[in-house]
Formats: sequence, structure tokens, C-alpha cells
Amino acid sequence: MTGWLCIAGLGPGSEALVTPEVRDALAEATDVLGYIPYVARVAPRAGLTLHPSDNREELDRARSALALAAAGGRVVVVSSGDPGVFAMASAVFEVMEGRADWQSLDVRVLPGITAMLAAAARAGAPLGHDFCALNLSDNLKPWALIEKRLRAAVGADMAMAFYNPRSASRPQGFEQTLNVLRETCEPERLLLFARAVSTPREHLICVSLSEARADMADMGTLVIVGSSTTRRVGRFVYTPRSVPGAGS
Amino acid sequence: MTGWLCIAGLGPGSEALVTPEVRDALAEATDVLGYIPYVARVAPRAGLTLHPSDNREELDRARSALALAAAGGRVVVVSSGDPGVFAMASAVFEVMEGRADWQSLDVRVLPGITAMLAAAARAGAPLGHDFCALNLSDNLKPWALIEKRLRAAVGADMAMAFYNPRSASRPQGFEQTLNVLRETCEPERLLLFARAVSTPREHLICVSLSEARADMADMGTLVIVGSSTTRRVGRFVYTPRSVPGAGS
Repeated sequence: MTGWLCIAGLGPGSEALVTPEVRDALAEATDVLGYIPYVARVAPRAGLTLHPSDNREELDRARSALALAAAGGRVVVVSSGDPGVFAMASAVFEVMEGRADWQSLDVRVLPGITAMLAAAARAGAPLGHDFCALNLSDNLKPWALIEKRLRAAVGADMAMAFYNPRSASRPQGFEQTLNVLRETCEPERLLLFARAVSTPREHLICVSLSEARADMADMGTLVIVGSSTTRRVGRFVYTPRSVPGAGS
Repeated sequence: MTGWLCIAGLGPGSEALVTPEVRDALAEATDVLGYIPYVARVAPRAGLTLHPSDNREELDRARSALALAAAGGRVVVVSSGDPGVFAMASAVFEVMEGRADWQSLDVRVLPGITAMLAAAARAGAPLGHDFCALNLSDNLKPWALIEKRLRAAVGADMAMAFYNPRSASRPQGFEQTLNVLRETCEPERLLLFARAVSTPREHLICVSLSEARADMADMGTLVIVGSSTTRRVGRFVYTPRSVPGAGS
């Protein structure tokens, strides 16, 4: 029996945003592993074992998944959004690094619609020009590096998408982020706070920096900060493709 | 008759990466507009008019699409990848900005798997930590701004994805990009060149900066430059989730 492992992205929530590739992998799987609410999106069936686990158990989950595939299982690790963006794919390769025997396994990453692109689409096109994606959690990197990246992105006038902006255990990080923005950007700069995009609980709000408050975000919010050119048109918000001085 | 306009992402090429949401919009459409090779991906059928157009006609195409929707058409503008990432969504909002009567139309952006996430998934997880997406074309912005953003991203040690790295009409831009990287990054820095991901013509190559040459890219290549921590594991390349000094 030849096993395989797919690290698959379920997209932001709606089944209409799950790719056929991911749906097919789930249909063939013997084992599905992931954070509890993501595994809950997979329908139980005969021949399929669901392995939900808690957050912050990424490396244990990756190890279990690789071991199951090595034993001949058809294994899917599910992430929300895209598995390669602040999700399970890196955790799997991190574990694989220490186990040469697992490096020849049939492992594939199946992309998904990541939260920033789902939120951007719902709002208009705020990421329609150069942008960066920053994880604001300082669980796995020092705060000084987060602030350095934030200041670099603002200085180069990129739009920004923030993942994990505000955890219950360290809410001051997002307040510090807003303070850096207030210090470096004009008060009219547009911010988008998006939650549960594509689900019945979807909530989006677009405000200027002068109106933004830290409690508009929690760990499940995706925050987009526009560049200096990002603006509203009707009920939408978008970043133009051109910057003055083109061709010079 | 109530018209609508969807700006839809077809993903990188494979039908297995087209979301059900986009497939359903195409099934209901009366008109599909887009760049010739993207419209060619939509099967002709009775009741559907295909409107292929040339590259660099984005604003005319956006205007035609909004006019067709205003006249009651069920209109889909197709982009490859995600329409909100260096694609048609911003062009539509740009046109809408000058036409208040079009701002109340039923307009939706349907996200897709953008090229950088498809390429990253195929290679492993090179965008598994903070990263930015830069369009290297200077058709719509000055080269000085591109170089400023490039230097900011390198200075803050983000991974980078480059769209439109090298046009036939201005091949020197990507050579300049490589020169900036050679000046600012270690020679072992990893670069991924990806073309036609998920299609039969898929081609990926991962090289160190010291091995990279400008002719490895053309306008259809997606280039990913790792951060200083990006590394190989077996046949994969990934960026670890952690950076030394976390929690400090």
C-alpha cells in the first residue's frame, strides 16, 4: 500500500471556494488531520478517520500525518485558507527536515483561497497593487522584527495584509501596530477589518486610520491596510494599478 | 432584466484549481470578456458570447464589461490567477470611479488561486512566513519605486514573489533586480522560477542567487525569492515559521 500526504487549503469558509483538487483529495483520504474547526468542515464517512487537534499543536500534527502516510495511509492535513500562508505546510517541512526517511514520501501541497484574497475580493481590490502579508503574532518571532517589517512596508508604500493581528494573550501587539501606522501614515489611510468571509457570519468594515481601534480586530480577523493610493469608489475600496511617474 | 458583473479568477491553469463559485458564474453568464488566452479556457455554448481582447486593453475591456452589465447582461471578466492581484479587478474599479451610474451595479470579485500561491505550493512552502508580492513591470509605475520596494523587502528579510518579471520590450528590469539582490543578499539565497504551474507545460527550477540568470524568466514566469531562512528539505523548498529570538 503506497501512502501519500496532501496538505490542503479549505479556503476561507464557503464550500464554493474549495477547489476540486482539494475536494478530490478529501474523497480519497483515509485520514484527515487538522485544527478542530477545520476538521469539522470535513463530512464523516466509512473508511475515513478524522483526527482533530488543538491549535498550537502543529508540529505534533505534522509528525502524526507523516507517520500515517509512511505507514500507507492516504492522509490530508487541512488548513483554512491556503496551507502555505501562515499555516500547516511549513510545519510539515520542518518536521520532515529531521527525518530523511520521510523526505521521499509522496507529499503535495494543495493551494487554497487565502484569507487576504477572499477579504480583498469581497471589499473590491485593495491588494490590486504591490503588497505584503505579515503575521502579527509574536509567538514564533520577536516583536522587533514585526515592527521592522511593518515600517519597511509603510516606507515603501505597499498595501499590507495582517494575519493573526490580535491574540487574547497579547492584545497590545495590535495597539502597537496601530501606533506605528498613526506615526507613519496619513489619518485618511484606509483599513479593512474582515471576519469569516464567505460564511453566514461574514463581517467587513472599512474605516480610516483615524477611526480605527484595536478592538476592531481579534485573532480571527484579517486586516488590510491600504497604500497611500488606496481609495473608495462607491461601496468598494481599491488600489489603482498605476502610480504617478510611470515610465520615467 | 437585471444584469451583473463578476470579475473572476481562473487560477493558474488546471480546471482542478477553478473554484465552484467561478464555475457557476461562468455557467450563468451571457458574456465573458478577457485576454485572449484566458477566454480560450471558457467552453463556447449557446447563449454565451465570448469577447476575447488583447493584452494592454484592460480599461477598454472593463468599460465594455460594465456597459454590458448595465444593459442587463450577466457578465464575467476572467483573469488568470486571482483577479485582485495585478489583474482585472482594479481596472474595473478604475473605470467605475468615473461613472457614478455604474457604482450601483451588482459587481462582485470572485477570488482565484493566484500564481505565487500555486507556485509556492508546488515547490513546498517558500511563502510560509512574511512575504510581499511585487509587480516588476514598469508600465504603470516608475522603476525607482520598484527598486525602493525591492530594497525595503530585502532589508526587512521578507520572502518576495515577483509578477511580470521580464518583458520582451524591457528585459533590463529583471537584470537590475538580480543586481540589487546580488548586492544585498548572500549568494546562497534561493530563487524559484515557475511557469505554467498546474498545466502540462509546468516548469519549475530552484537555484541559488549565484546561479540565477535573467534569462531564466520571461513575462509569464513567477519568481519567488526566499528570505534568509528559506531552505531546501529533500526536493522541497520552504521558509520556517519561526525566527530566532521569538518571544523576546
